[in-house]
Amino acid sequence: MKVAILGYGTVGGGVATVLEQNEKKIAQYLGEDMTLAHILDLRTFPGDRNEDLVTDDFEKILADESVRVICEAMGGLHPAYEFTKKALDKGISVCTSNKELVSTHGPELVQLAKDRHCSYLFEASVGGGIPLLRPFSTTLMHERITRVTGVLNGTTNYILTRMEEGDAFETALLRAQQKGYAEKDPTADIEGIDACRKTAILASLAGGAYVSPDEIPTEGITGITSVDFDYARTNGYAIRLIGQVTLTGGATGALVAPFLVPEEHPLAGVHDVFNACIVHGNMLGNVMFFGPGAGDKATASAVVSDMLDAALHDGSHVFVNLTNVPALRMDDEAMMNRFFVRVDETAKNAAVRAFGEDITFMEARSVRGEWAFITPKISEQAFRDALHSLDEVRGYLRVLK
Amino acid sequence: MKVAILGYGTVGGGVATVLEQNEKKIAQYLGEDMTLAHILDLRTFPGDRNEDLVTDDFEKILADESVRVICEAMGGLHPAYEFTKKALDKGISVCTSNKELVSTHGPELVQLAKDRHCSYLFEASVGGGIPLLRPFSTTLMHERITRVTGVLNGTTNYILTRMEEGDAFETALLRAQQKGYAEKDPTADIEGIDACRKTAILASLAGGAYVSPDEIPTEGITGITSVDFDYARTNGYAIRLIGQVTLTGGATGALVAPFLVPEEHPLAGVHDVFNACIVHGNMLGNVMFFGPGAGDKATASAVVSDMLDAALHDGSHVFVNLTNVPALRMDDEAMMNRFFVRVDETAKNAAVRAFGEDITFMEARSVRGEWAFITPKISEQAFRDALHSLDEVRGYLRVLK
Repeated sequence: MKVAILGYGTVGGGVATVLEQNEKKIAQYLGEDMTLAHILDLRTFPGDRNEDLVTDDFEKILADESVRVICEAMGGLHPAYEFTKKALDKGISVCTSNKELVSTHGPELVQLAKDRHCSYLFEASVGGGIPLLRPFSTTLMHERITRVTGVLNGTTNYILTRMEEGDAFETALLRAQQKGYAEKDPTADIEGIDACRKTAILASLAGGAYVSPDEIPTEGITGITSVDFDYARTNGYAIRLIGQVTLTGGATGALVAPFLVPEEHPLAGVHDVFNACIVHGNMLGNVMFFGPGAGDKATASAVVSDMLDAALHDGSHVFVNLTNVPALRMDDEAMMNRFFVRVDETAKNAAVRAFGEDITFMEARSVRGEWAFITPKISEQAFRDALHSLDEVRGYLRVLK
Repeated sequence: MKVAILGYGTVGGGVATVLEQNEKKIAQYLGEDMTLAHILDLRTFPGDRNEDLVTDDFEKILADESVRVICEAMGGLHPAYEFTKKALDKGISVCTSNKELVSTHGPELVQLAKDRHCSYLFEASVGGGIPLLRPFSTTLMHERITRVTGVLNGTTNYILTRMEEGDAFETALLRAQQKGYAEKDPTADIEGIDACRKTAILASLAGGAYVSPDEIPTEGITGITSVDFDYARTNGYAIRLIGQVTLTGGATGALVAPFLVPEEHPLAGVHDVFNACIVHGNMLGNVMFFGPGAGDKATASAVVSDMLDAALHDGSHVFVNLTNVPALRMDDEAMMNRFFVRVDETAKNAAVRAFGEDITFMEARSVRGEWAFITPKISEQAFRDALHSLDEVRGYLRVLK
């Protein structure tokens, strides 16, 4: 069984390592060797052990009839989309960690794979190495999933963990970049775009109906300051960037935003670059998956698990619950959360008028000159309306119940 | 697709409920209805909605050629073993939560299922509703699993959580019984026998070689007192009953015992009847699965997920990594842990002589007249040897690193 890797970066290189280091276990499970035959990359890798396998010509890989599974680890939409389509069209299975491509064109690619009796698999696109996605298409298919809540982006979680310990945002970001957790242009991570794509994939799988990342209201972590952490610490909360999916009455609501998370909540215990995801099913209750959200070998291990699944089912289609049917979007009035709001101290009475008497005032050890409070559970729509009526809002966060 | 349930107790009743309440989702996934045709129980259930399905004659169920999947929820070895064999022998798949049967006769039953082109599945036997076992036979097959560490028994974890809050063992046990978490005869839970069976199943799946529960050294929680909790609290530990599997150099070591668990360790955050399991793979690193370890509907949901898998593959065998090959047993000298030991205060010098200068003395707020310490990492064998040379040992616990 020959395979190819598109993109010899962190994930692609990790896949080569896993194929090599766990060669025997793989051969034992598959019943034959899984041999890396080609690597597509525009760069050359002089001295690399796989130097001779590298080509910049995708057509050369396609022309090798013995290649049955391709790992797409290029990232980005183009030419990953075109290459994936060409491979699937030829009946070659494609396994990927590319959340941008999966969240944007996943349904079309899964359908194409089905039509061509091969597979399009993407376990590594959410939660790195955690075996999180497959249950949505297997063990949990009979459950009515009502909620998915996750810490899905390792970079922002690392930054928030450092800020919790006293770093300023800029310092924390710099440390993340030095450690290789954040890219030079960190926009996709810190603005919540990466978490949004993963949330879109989770929402689509959980409901069996497609949710586009474009439809998901997304807030990043750039607005969070040491003052927010002061309130959080004083009142027993952590701050986490949360991807939230709610499914009721046939509709799907999704949201990405930083939340105050009570210290006793399992997601508050997710530190550094770890990821975690809580899934609620109507019969099952809550289950949580936790593990390394980043790391070349962990993510690569998830890609390899897909490559093995595709290889074992070579010639047929491995089912994934990602469909073309667009999800019914939940009304903003049905999506409920509690909100933590900070306003200028002159705005106290206006805040009570806007949010009602049931708000809970919050104090922080070293903050003066402002008022902060937590609202009761209200809808996203009601929150926006009330917020508009208030001058001097200094910041807000949602609160995980 | 017709199915039958053997044993109409907590799990069997839960399976009937899941089949009923999630009927539509099940039919959608399976492509046809999954209809409950028979329930085997010696009791009658006047007024129950499934009253008419109940029979005390297993042969009647076997004679119904339309039954393709059976849920065995009788518990115990006999006649569950005989009934399972008869069903598999006829090519009927069997799905179970019966950890006693799986840990004792699982390999033989899986082999029989393979020979007869049907399936023997047991997701619900460990971790209740948590989709924990399937990855060992699918997504993790290419990983070299080196360690599995779990809180696997909800009843003892509930008791330990209550004791943490100040209850005496007897009071905590009584509360567990009142809540239905512990049986009238709680031996299997509090002596660690249930956790041992689950650890045996995990060890067998993780290494792909059979470990019998008889081979696993097992200590329960009956010896733990408020003094131990005093030390734990003072020094930042929780106490958890841990199932531990270590795999190196082709050998498997397994152990069930109460451990001191550092407060910052994820397993210290597992309270009440919840279960959690950390799996370490050579490429993956650590992943954790967390969820309801008990509860009729959660466990039943896991059984139903197996029933659907068996039904979708009716006529063929669903692979599980449980083999007849006996595991090579790890030498007691290779199994390393740190130990927390309490001795009479007169035995301090003897303790230093027995365990060496590297022991760390521990204090507890309200304990007088004794010495307590934590040893460096030593082997089970070395610990036993040292312990034998000491008089006046008041108690010991292992320490999770």
